[in-house]
Amino acid sequence: MPSVEIIAVGSELLTPERVDTNSLWLTAQLNELGFEVTAKSIIGDQRQRLTQAFRQALESADIVLATGGLGPTEDDVTRDCAAEALGVSLEHWDSLWDDLKAKFARMGRPIPENNRRQASVLQGGESLPNPNGTAPGQWFGRQHGALILLPGPPRELKPMFTNHVVERLRPLAGDNVLSRRTLKVYGLGESAMDQMIAHLYPQHPEVTVITLFTPLDLEIHLLADGPTAEQGLAKIAPLEQAVRDVLDLYVYGHSTQSLAEVVGGLLLQSGQTVVTAESLTGGLVAQRMTEVAGSSRYFLGAYVTYSEGMKQTVLGVRPELLQQYSAVSPQVAEAMALGARQRSGADYALSLTGYAGPDGGTDKDPVGTVYLGLAGPQGVESKRVKFPGDRELVRSRSAQASLDWLRRALL
Amino acid sequence: MPSVEIIAVGSELLTPERVDTNSLWLTAQLNELGFEVTAKSIIGDQRQRLTQAFRQALESADIVLATGGLGPTEDDVTRDCAAEALGVSLEHWDSLWDDLKAKFARMGRPIPENNRRQASVLQGGESLPNPNGTAPGQWFGRQHGALILLPGPPRELKPMFTNHVVERLRPLAGDNVLSRRTLKVYGLGESAMDQMIAHLYPQHPEVTVITLFTPLDLEIHLLADGPTAEQGLAKIAPLEQAVRDVLDLYVYGHSTQSLAEVVGGLLLQSGQTVVTAESLTGGLVAQRMTEVAGSSRYFLGAYVTYSEGMKQTVLGVRPELLQQYSAVSPQVAEAMALGARQRSGADYALSLTGYAGPDGGTDKDPVGTVYLGLAGPQGVESKRVKFPGDRELVRSRSAQASLDWLRRALL
Repeated sequence: MPSVEIIAVGSELLTPERVDTNSLWLTAQLNELGFEVTAKSIIGDQRQRLTQAFRQALESADIVLATGGLGPTEDDVTRDCAAEALGVSLEHWDSLWDDLKAKFARMGRPIPENNRRQASVLQGGESLPNPNGTAPGQWFGRQHGALILLPGPPRELKPMFTNHVVERLRPLAGDNVLSRRTLKVYGLGESAMDQMIAHLYPQHPEVTVITLFTPLDLEIHLLADGPTAEQGLAKIAPLEQAVRDVLDLYVYGHSTQSLAEVVGGLLLQSGQTVVTAESLTGGLVAQRMTEVAGSSRYFLGAYVTYSEGMKQTVLGVRPELLQQYSAVSPQVAEAMALGARQRSGADYALSLTGYAGPDGGTDKDPVGTVYLGLAGPQGVESKRVKFPGDRELVRSRSAQASLDWLRRALL
Repeated sequence: MPSVEIIAVGSELLTPERVDTNSLWLTAQLNELGFEVTAKSIIGDQRQRLTQAFRQALESADIVLATGGLGPTEDDVTRDCAAEALGVSLEHWDSLWDDLKAKFARMGRPIPENNRRQASVLQGGESLPNPNGTAPGQWFGRQHGALILLPGPPRELKPMFTNHVVERLRPLAGDNVLSRRTLKVYGLGESAMDQMIAHLYPQHPEVTVITLFTPLDLEIHLLADGPTAEQGLAKIAPLEQAVRDVLDLYVYGHSTQSLAEVVGGLLLQSGQTVVTAESLTGGLVAQRMTEVAGSSRYFLGAYVTYSEGMKQTVLGVRPELLQQYSAVSPQVAEAMALGARQRSGADYALSLTGYAGPDGGTDKDPVGTVYLGLAGPQGVESKRVKFPGDRELVRSRSAQASLDWLRRALL
């Protein structure tokens, strides 16, 4: 699959607030056309650095696509740097200059002399029309590749790419497109998973594997190219199956499915309902379940009993239990789950009690210790889990562990 | 101002979905310390390309900061490429390997052999401890500069930068530092706010103003440089005051304060408590309140009554009310708030009922319509709000509106 490097030009893109959204949009378009983006960079308006960046990208990738820096000011150095890196000169095009003058005349404004820069084109290149602004784009063909210059504003860049770049790129893409399959995994560390499945990769050299570790779970991206999306997916299928065979229940879903969505699907299939009884998570499990559209068909509600008083009045946890074992104990986790199941009439109840930190915890149960409860048609169970990380992470991981427990119970 | 180039490593960062948020956070920190970010790039896990990128960055900038690619797998090539670009070798540190083994032992897991890679350090470099993960960082000093390797996960990167990199960077920083003051604003649209305050900016040309529109609220960043942070902040202060005078109660906080944190502070000051009764938000208000450490001092719990049955049994909403007005009505919002306040004994109760979508809604109350209730010592009130956006956005905005109502009630 031919490679693309994207260079965004402009010091204003190097502030803490700005995200280079152009490159995300372009990556999606390029992947669909059958190109792989192998690097992207943002370079300030410095002539020497930008020229170097062009040189390196031209060496490394088939296609180099630059955005921004095509305006009329001294700071707009993209044209000059591209020319220098390619070793060609810039030519003044009278026809472009006439277009620009006409554009300004239509706006009833005199054309500043420095707009003349926008009429210069890489020697041997083509100019790409810009109906939405003053900066024309440029296409410079190379052996099996191209250098492309596009304006920075998204409403100029996007139509120019769609209307003038796609048709020129298509012949360079070969006929191949990139297909992707994502597996979502819960319950394994990154290196443990790697050890389980890394030996499978070399048997499928046509598939690129990317593993992604998030605070909540793992993603395995399987990528392959082929003349059609179907053919790419057909290459991926055997490795996907091999991975699923090894990881088994650790794989909970695919694509963008969340764990709550998968659990919801299982409840819906079996016509069962759930409630939650939450202490340290403060409603986070409920919030994740109700993120899913249509969750009212299986999710009845939640009892967020943050205080001991509410554990007693709302869930009927006996004061002796709290006194003897403390609120963070398997006994209380089980009592919370039982109380929630009985009072709501749901088929299942999940409960969570623990120390999220930064304060709290005991020698026996330090911060990060959480007791999970699960009450269902077969009775009630509890388990103790211990998570590293700060308050947010402990809460988030507890919620995920609770959802995964229900998923496994439903399978 | 000394220059920094940031290199993010990882093919998974080159997909259309992923934003390199680390580099945005690092840019803010570096600017404050007195460094200018002059380029940043994202490079896939390709050894040759990454080595080239390191070489070029080392040539162009004083400081080179790389994130990611420090894991234990074959794909994690950052250490090797940095060594090659610097022309030094990697040394195995027994002490690091012992630390890693101890870390795995504490988690009760056997250490995979491939984690050995994480114990190798650039010859002449220093290792930076990582209490939040397995990958240590690295600092390699150069004349007037440094090469820094940090882990990719934000929870590992941020504390490592703050605790181990800042002190090493400070002596390399320039004479001027960039100071920043952030105001958080709720309840105004971007252009409405712009109309109210844009005329103030030209009177303070030494301050750069950036307004940032998020799905939940607005941020106003005020920036100025000076030989010390105090001198920068002194330049900012008059404009901050002018903005606060105009926006008044719309400004709810500053820096990274969340609305839930501000509300929590007000409750704590007045020694009062709160509960929530949530339908469409499914526990989101409770979850935001309990994100704040120490929230158990004023947050008692939540009744997430997603089903009509639970609205009746848990909150005592009368069936006639539900039948006559439907669950999404001011009457039910008020009954939910009253029931929650009475049953919990809290000083305040917030309630939310509405149509988050995509299904549901009526001609009178289409998707996006939400009734908020507030019960307190002065009685109960409700109000109708209507939010554009998808399910997630409607839920999120409803939660924020509810919190802001309580904030204004407490002021």
